[in-house]
Amino acid sequence: ESRLPGFATHQVGVAGAVVDESSGKVLVVQDKNKTKNAWKFPGGLSDPGENIGETAVREVFEETGVHSQFRSLLSIRQQHDHPGAFGMSDMYVICRLSPLSYEINFCTQECLRCEWLPLSELARTADTTPITSRIAGLLLHGLERGFDTIDLTMEELPAVYSGMFYQLYHRQLPVAPKS
Amino acid sequence: ESRLPGFATHQVGVAGAVVDESSGKVLVVQDKNKTKNAWKFPGGLSDPGENIGETAVREVFEETGVHSQFRSLLSIRQQHDHPGAFGMSDMYVICRLSPLSYEINFCTQECLRCEWLPLSELARTADTTPITSRIAGLLLHGLERGFDTIDLTMEELPAVYSGMFYQLYHRQLPVAPKS
Repeated sequence: ESRLPGFATHQVGVAGAVVDESSGKVLVVQDKNKTKNAWKFPGGLSDPGENIGETAVREVFEETGVHSQFRSLLSIRQQHDHPGAFGMSDMYVICRLSPLSYEINFCTQECLRCEWLPLSELARTADTTPITSRIAGLLLHGLERGFDTIDLTMEELPAVYSGMFYQLYHRQLPVAPKS
Repeated sequence: ESRLPGFATHQVGVAGAVVDESSGKVLVVQDKNKTKNAWKFPGGLSDPGENIGETAVREVFEETGVHSQFRSLLSIRQQHDHPGAFGMSDMYVICRLSPLSYEINFCTQECLRCEWLPLSELARTADTTPITSRIAGLLLHGLERGFDTIDLTMEELPAVYSGMFYQLYHRQLPVAPKS
């Protein structure tokens, strides 16, 4: 890529879909300050220098009290929100997480409700956003057929200059059988 | 996600892997101003308000003279390059494109070389970057088994406020047979 001087044009937001594989449930919230009571995945903006997975785990904990672990990247949305606002755009990433704890202790300032909802219910309810609905469908497929069918897994690679690493997210290819 | 006032933290770069399915070749360049002659996919930074696919098509044309069409998103890299430089980070997206023309007319200011290289050769050569090598492996797999095994396809959805759209990239699920 070109390394001409650039400038930041995007904010990055991350949502975390915490899937409990044993029960087939996923952690969802309803925002307190939105008009429609739509179930969605907890999430928020990345802090400067924060990795995608770190943002997901932090935001899930801050909103719901649930500890979790990063597993994969599922989906990306690009939105050019505010053409007048300095041309700032938004990159919104949805991750799959695994729970490390289950007890909900949600942030009452941000959330109206927080629940472990069956994925099958989230996939068909009208009380959700188009993105959440699609991701629920993907996760349901993953639960039934294996998450390797939907995951972009993370690989950490050394950058050209010493001491730095970058994270690469891509489809994991099936391992070829050794001959 | 939280809609608290944010600020742009990331620049977005896009590379385009133009795959000619009939010949199994992919369009690659070597930078003029880098020390190592590594094959890589043409690409560059997004202009403000530009969609990922638009950047890929534009950059490929500017660098190589080849017209192409956006097909899918393959991989994402996040890198926190410059801890001292205002905390700016980099989101680098690699797309799959299809050629609409084949004649190379490359930018001699940016590129030293530009070629249609067999994917199998790019996947095993040492004269490339770790990311390019991985993507070449993915594309080779897609060429042999179908690109639906590696693609994140784009879906355009209406935003909450009128007149705006956003782009969502995710795995396309196999269509369930109608019963």
